[in-house]
Amino acid sequence: METIAAIATPNGVGAISIVRLSGDNAYEIAKKLTKKDLTPRVATLSKLYNNKNELIDIGLVIYFKAPNSFTGEDIVEFQCHGGVIVSRLVLETLFEYGARAAFPGEFTKRAFLNGKIDASQAEAIAKLIETRSREGAKLLSRQLDGDLGEFVDEVREKLIEIMAYTEVFIDYAEEDLPETLGYEIEERLAKIEHLLKHTLEVSKRREGMLSGYKIAIVGKPNVGKSSILNALLNKQRAIVSDIAGTTRDTIEEDIQIGSHLIRIIDTAGIRAAKDEIEKIGVERSKEAIKEADIVLAVFDATEFTDEDEQILNIIKESGKDTIIVINKIDKGIDSDISKFENMPVVKISAKEDITPLVEKLKEILDSYSGEDEHVLISARQINAVEKALKSIEESKEFLQTGELELFSYQIQDAIRAISEITKPFEYDEMLDKMFGSFCVGK
Amino acid sequence: METIAAIATPNGVGAISIVRLSGDNAYEIAKKLTKKDLTPRVATLSKLYNNKNELIDIGLVIYFKAPNSFTGEDIVEFQCHGGVIVSRLVLETLFEYGARAAFPGEFTKRAFLNGKIDASQAEAIAKLIETRSREGAKLLSRQLDGDLGEFVDEVREKLIEIMAYTEVFIDYAEEDLPETLGYEIEERLAKIEHLLKHTLEVSKRREGMLSGYKIAIVGKPNVGKSSILNALLNKQRAIVSDIAGTTRDTIEEDIQIGSHLIRIIDTAGIRAAKDEIEKIGVERSKEAIKEADIVLAVFDATEFTDEDEQILNIIKESGKDTIIVINKIDKGIDSDISKFENMPVVKISAKEDITPLVEKLKEILDSYSGEDEHVLISARQINAVEKALKSIEESKEFLQTGELELFSYQIQDAIRAISEITKPFEYDEMLDKMFGSFCVGK
Repeated sequence: METIAAIATPNGVGAISIVRLSGDNAYEIAKKLTKKDLTPRVATLSKLYNNKNELIDIGLVIYFKAPNSFTGEDIVEFQCHGGVIVSRLVLETLFEYGARAAFPGEFTKRAFLNGKIDASQAEAIAKLIETRSREGAKLLSRQLDGDLGEFVDEVREKLIEIMAYTEVFIDYAEEDLPETLGYEIEERLAKIEHLLKHTLEVSKRREGMLSGYKIAIVGKPNVGKSSILNALLNKQRAIVSDIAGTTRDTIEEDIQIGSHLIRIIDTAGIRAAKDEIEKIGVERSKEAIKEADIVLAVFDATEFTDEDEQILNIIKESGKDTIIVINKIDKGIDSDISKFENMPVVKISAKEDITPLVEKLKEILDSYSGEDEHVLISARQINAVEKALKSIEESKEFLQTGELELFSYQIQDAIRAISEITKPFEYDEMLDKMFGSFCVGK
Repeated sequence: METIAAIATPNGVGAISIVRLSGDNAYEIAKKLTKKDLTPRVATLSKLYNNKNELIDIGLVIYFKAPNSFTGEDIVEFQCHGGVIVSRLVLETLFEYGARAAFPGEFTKRAFLNGKIDASQAEAIAKLIETRSREGAKLLSRQLDGDLGEFVDEVREKLIEIMAYTEVFIDYAEEDLPETLGYEIEERLAKIEHLLKHTLEVSKRREGMLSGYKIAIVGKPNVGKSSILNALLNKQRAIVSDIAGTTRDTIEEDIQIGSHLIRIIDTAGIRAAKDEIEKIGVERSKEAIKEADIVLAVFDATEFTDEDEQILNIIKESGKDTIIVINKIDKGIDSDISKFENMPVVKISAKEDITPLVEKLKEILDSYSGEDEHVLISARQINAVEKALKSIEESKEFLQTGELELFSYQIQDAIRAISEITKPFEYDEMLDKMFGSFCVGK
């Protein structure tokens, strides 16, 4: 393989920057810079020289001998001093010695092509670098550890069992088939379908885990929505500044509750100036609820009007996770909360303290982060499961007509579909699309 | 020592981020995250767990056993997946296990206090991270390799020799001293003084190597200064985009010629709109020349006026390195260049091609980058040399009066002063000032 090189750390001022080199000539090229023999995996402090024999840095060099490396090829990693120049001098020297610039995602693509990681792990790497959610990062780490591979194996194994079970009867005439055969197989298929459908559903609900859960604050005008929004934003600021040893970043734009990332739905009214908010009516609430993962439904502690009633009904119909926020409790309280049925209720005065709301929100968000469920993280993965489900659905017709061979073909299609999560057919276009969205150096 | 931790790579999106941990408990803490025994210096792929036993990443972990580490303490380095979250999860876990956030420059400070690097090397690290000049980076790499340490040793050794030489005569009465003694010692001192003064002078001339050489484009109105400036800026853009495999950065704001960083002096006229330029006269040229490392003196090929004469005289008086740029050669040429004496002359048409100017500029800049001279890179280092020179100057008086003991004290002061370049007395304030300007994680 051609030897590729790239700076693997973000561009900017920092203590360390890493230049990575992968391919057939990685070791030989590294030897020219270091003038040293490198022992695999041993971090060695070395002077680094350019092709004019000028010293350009002193840093740690680590050689990973193929196939025991990220890409499965020979890799050499140079830990240079940070900043924008030193790593560039090293990179330029690698180019002088015959390495070429890596394309975005090319290291990971090679890892995939060399069988070091499966497609779902490659996707997890890309999303891990992008996510700004702590819970999202944990989910992706599990996927990096092969969680979806296990899911695929489980489904595939069950489908193969069904194929093996039907195989013996494949040459039987329809009238000779055991009466219970159809029933037994259908029961087995139903279990698989349930698992797949459940996974799709969970994945849809967990979308917010990576990109931020969408929260809608709804309620009639003047009920205190802005105060709640502002209090949530302030809460966030406090949490971010708690984290010592980290430098400024862009996370502040989202809101963090515990280790969850949330994103307030930007309905015109919610972020608008105060006089704008007055115009929000039932319609706007409706739209916000439709988009939301969680609804904060705000009511005034001193009154419950027809408009409130309408909003409450929309929420009930939507089936969305909702927190009933009784606001302005300092001004009195309407104690009848039976109308909210089993929805969680918090009573606050938003201008004073929203802690009960934040606690409840955290409780709901925490419940979303079970480690026991598989989550699909890309349209590609979801598409694979949907294709598998379709083949299973179609297979059942052939089961009913006793056409076991055609049934078997459908099950094979389902196996092929589910396998694409980890091992897509190697269409170049698809791979380019998959890895092209990576950053350089990965 | 307390165990400290920080993210050592720039904040942002990249393939890899590094979290560093240094101190007495580094190994024990790392073991809690990795659940592994770590072999010193061996890069080990490991799962990383937080204190709730949740998987937070899979990455390379390298343990550097004291004293064979950057800080001289136990260090563990975690190579996490990039982005802003994963490294933060790791950092937070380290804090949970008792590490505290490192102060800016604290890793390097510990390296210094533990005798792993001297003060000049610590300063080189800080500047290496900041510099945006390739030649600057190379100079700093040599300093990191101990170049100034060698300089200090050389000066110190020579001073000690002088002390040893005078020591035998210290109890002699003045009249018993050998006649040649004063002369011999003065000759030796003169050599040292010359080295120190030369180093100060070189250092002053090389200031631009780190921060960018200051170039002034001077000349009477309408002589083509803006065209030259624009052509230089365009040249730069081409060079930057040549470097494949690197992402966008802020270097574009300066101009690069070869591996040198240059900075056009921002006189009001030079960056002003065209009608403003008309107003530039002799006075403005004077100011620009004073500030500059190199002067580009632009003249019209078709005429040489009194104003040109005045500007040329100012340049000659300044003694600054100058390139005489004869512009508009497409419009004819005044062939008498004897008035420019030995100054390098390039003849161009700035609107068509400035290559001859760029080549000449590169030639001059290249001549600045000799590897054979020592360069002081901080006010602190310059101050140390100036103090040493002062003590040597004062010592000579005692030599003349034959007060060898007092002479010896002055030489000792000079030794102490020069030693401060690498081994400053450990005033906490000074150290805090020196390391406080570092970035976190270094």
